[in-house]
Amino acid sequence: MSIVPLLDDDNLPPASRAVFDDIRKTRNTDFVNNFWRALAHDPVLLKRTWESVKEVMAPGKLDPLVKEMIYVAVSATNNCEYCIRSHTAAARAKGMDDDMLMELLAVVGMANETNRLVNGLQVPVDDAFK
Amino acid sequence: MSIVPLLDDDNLPPASRAVFDDIRKTRNTDFVNNFWRALAHDPVLLKRTWESVKEVMAPGKLDPLVKEMIYVAVSATNNCEYCIRSHTAAARAKGMDDDMLMELLAVVGMANETNRLVNGLQVPVDDAFK
Amino acid sequence: MSIVPLLDDDNLPPASRAVFDDIRKTRNTDFVNNFWRALAHDPVLLKRTWESVKEVMAPGKLDPLVKEMIYVAVSATNNCEYCIRSHTAAARAKGMDDDMLMELLAVVGMANETNRLVNGLQVPVDDAFK
Amino acid sequence: MSIVPLLDDDNLPPASRAVFDDIRKTRNTDFVNNFWRALAHDPVLLKRTWESVKEVMAPGKLDPLVKEMIYVAVSATNNCEYCIRSHTAAARAKGMDDDMLMELLAVVGMANETNRLVNGLQVPVDDAFK
Amino acid sequence: MSIVPLLDDDNLPPASRAVFDDIRKTRNTDFVNNFWRALAHDPVLLKRTWESVKEVMAPGKLDPLVKEMIYVAVSATNNCEYCIRSHTAAARAKGMDDDMLMELLAVVGMANETNRLVNGLQVPVDDAFK
Amino acid sequence: MSIVPLLDDDNLPPASRAVFDDIRKTRNTDFVNNFWRALAHDPVLLKRTWESVKEVMAPGKLDPLVKEMIYVAVSATNNCEYCIRSHTAAARAKGMDDDMLMELLAVVGMANETNRLVNGLQVPVDDAFK
Repeated sequence: MSIVPLLDDDNLPPASRAVFDDIRKTRNTDFVNNFWRALAHDPVLLKRTWESVKEVMAPGKLDPLVKEMIYVAVSATNNCEYCIRSHTAAARAKGMDDDMLMELLAVVGMANETNRLVNGLQVPVDDAFK
Repeated sequence: MSIVPLLDDDNLPPASRAVFDDIRKTRNTDFVNNFWRALAHDPVLLKRTWESVKEVMAPGKLDPLVKEMIYVAVSATNNCEYCIRSHTAAARAKGMDDDMLMELLAVVGMANETNRLVNGLQVPVDDAFK
Repeated sequence: MSIVPLLDDDNLPPASRAVFDDIRKTRNTDFVNNFWRALAHDPVLLKRTWESVKEVMAPGKLDPLVKEMIYVAVSATNNCEYCIRSHTAAARAKGMDDDMLMELLAVVGMANETNRLVNGLQVPVDDAFK
Repeated sequence: MSIVPLLDDDNLPPASRAVFDDIRKTRNTDFVNNFWRALAHDPVLLKRTWESVKEVMAPGKLDPLVKEMIYVAVSATNNCEYCIRSHTAAARAKGMDDDMLMELLAVVGMANETNRLVNGLQVPVDDAFK
Repeated sequence: MSIVPLLDDDNLPPASRAVFDDIRKTRNTDFVNNFWRALAHDPVLLKRTWESVKEVMAPGKLDPLVKEMIYVAVSATNNCEYCIRSHTAAARAKGMDDDMLMELLAVVGMANETNRLVNGLQVPVDDAFK
Repeated sequence: MSIVPLLDDDNLPPASRAVFDDIRKTRNTDFVNNFWRALAHDPVLLKRTWESVKEVMAPGKLDPLVKEMIYVAVSATNNCEYCIRSHTAAARAKGMDDDMLMELLAVVGMANETNRLVNGLQVPVDDAFK
């Protein structure tokens, strides 16, 4: 059970309803996932978070699929199950297959490993990298 | 100062020298950065780490530039300065410009933010994501 | 299932029983939550942890409610479900309502985001902050 | 040295200049710290981050000083030096003295400790906390 | 449910089958745990991970039990339930009893606490430790 | 510079002086490192932290050297430079040589890697580990 109840469509504050409308229109689906239903208790937080995610994940100089994979990489590093599952699903919807997922996780694992080798040895940054 | 001295080329154990040779050949440069010079004290760890990095970061179904950006995303999440600087440099060498870096970091920041909103609210995973 | 069995009142080592007595007296309730029942296997660890929590969370220059919210902020950052749920409950018992929780989590999310923007850009500390 | 150059006032993109104007007006000071000077390369990211921080840290149901202390708690947990120093300075400007800082850090330390005791023992959540 | 299906013995890619054979032979048991069954989708990742774990966890200058306890310490710090449970089981199989586990977790908790006191106070490293 | 000034022996609150006396007596050296000099502003926090560290790191069912190595493992995972350097120094004083350090860090790196592979794949815990 979530810490605050998930709001269904009949119990939304009006300002949250407007955000839900935009989520549905932007994503072209009626489905609104639980993350937004929890945030809906606070229309200001909901609106800011949705507007931010929409802006950050939009096509830019990076491909939306690459952005989703970066989202998965961070979420796997932090071990946020909800985020791992929802953004893995989003990446798959944008074309990531299982081979690509395994390659992605191999990089995530390796980076987490070498980060700690560097920490434990306190390796000084090479001048070439400054 | 690093926790173990960085080994210069004249003080390498023979098995570490062989790994350095492969690093130079694979990267087509004489430059071997400090990370490997710290690991060089333990030829087994050096060899395994280098072979793993070489395998993981090689072109596959993901582009090497995408892999470098994922490496940066993890390292920024974990705050490993050496790893951030060295892999940002590597990503730039593969074509990442400042606009792409800013987009990358925007996703990293957003993922770290929403990971904690999800945690704090203990949002249950939607059936659609299972 | 926990890694070590949770001890019920009939199976406590005597030294752990004395700590449970103090927990009950201090909190003015018969309820002793699972965290202490797991620690009870090691009376020294139980006693030290309880005495420390009691001292740290007592009213001081910071209000006990503020302390509970800080505890939630750390636990959400680390994603410890047990700690999030138990300290959110404690904060609510001390007066935190849902609006305050959402504000708290908004700060936690923002801090986690900007922490990574700073890391990824390696922003040097301004002289004014030293 | 930061990963991207810090922009001084004479080299700002126009859209970033407008954000700097709002930072100065909102904070009633001419000083703009390095974090914003690094973000200024990307006016969209700068504007979104500034608007979000302004909204999140504004007085609400939580006191601005409490919000700053929560920011410090998260930053100390993540070990972001820049964020620890800048938000400790901000908290001090809002009234936090050394005794309050020490109490704050005592809670942060304790939470990080018990989070790991809970993890290591995999303590199940009590029904009372659900 | 895992993100990729767990492969049973009848559905292994041939290269993954060979790794499973080595896992069984090395561990002298027919049991292959779920971690390897998930990795089995990617024989290259499976083989590299297994060879690495086998090499790292083998008896060396550190005792295998000490290595398992270090694995538990890291996994409890990161809150990876699967890793905590599997490596606690492995440590127990190598001789760790409940008293030793509690001592181990007490150190893990204390280190996580003092790490954050140090962070929050930005304590400079003593010359004696450099 | 630390966030609070480091207190030299001439400026200690009396209650902190008593703790310093015990640190010196217990460790059989006149040297008191910076961590304690920062905590000395808050005699209650200083005393509790010192008593806890003394208790946790004392010989028990785990060897003090093993405890120091676990401390290093956690600190490398969290990237706390002060803690890494001070506890590596302490482990060396108790007999850890460079080969043992490299083995320790190899385990730390591997655990951090497989923790994230497990997270990213959401591997369910085997019944055998419950």
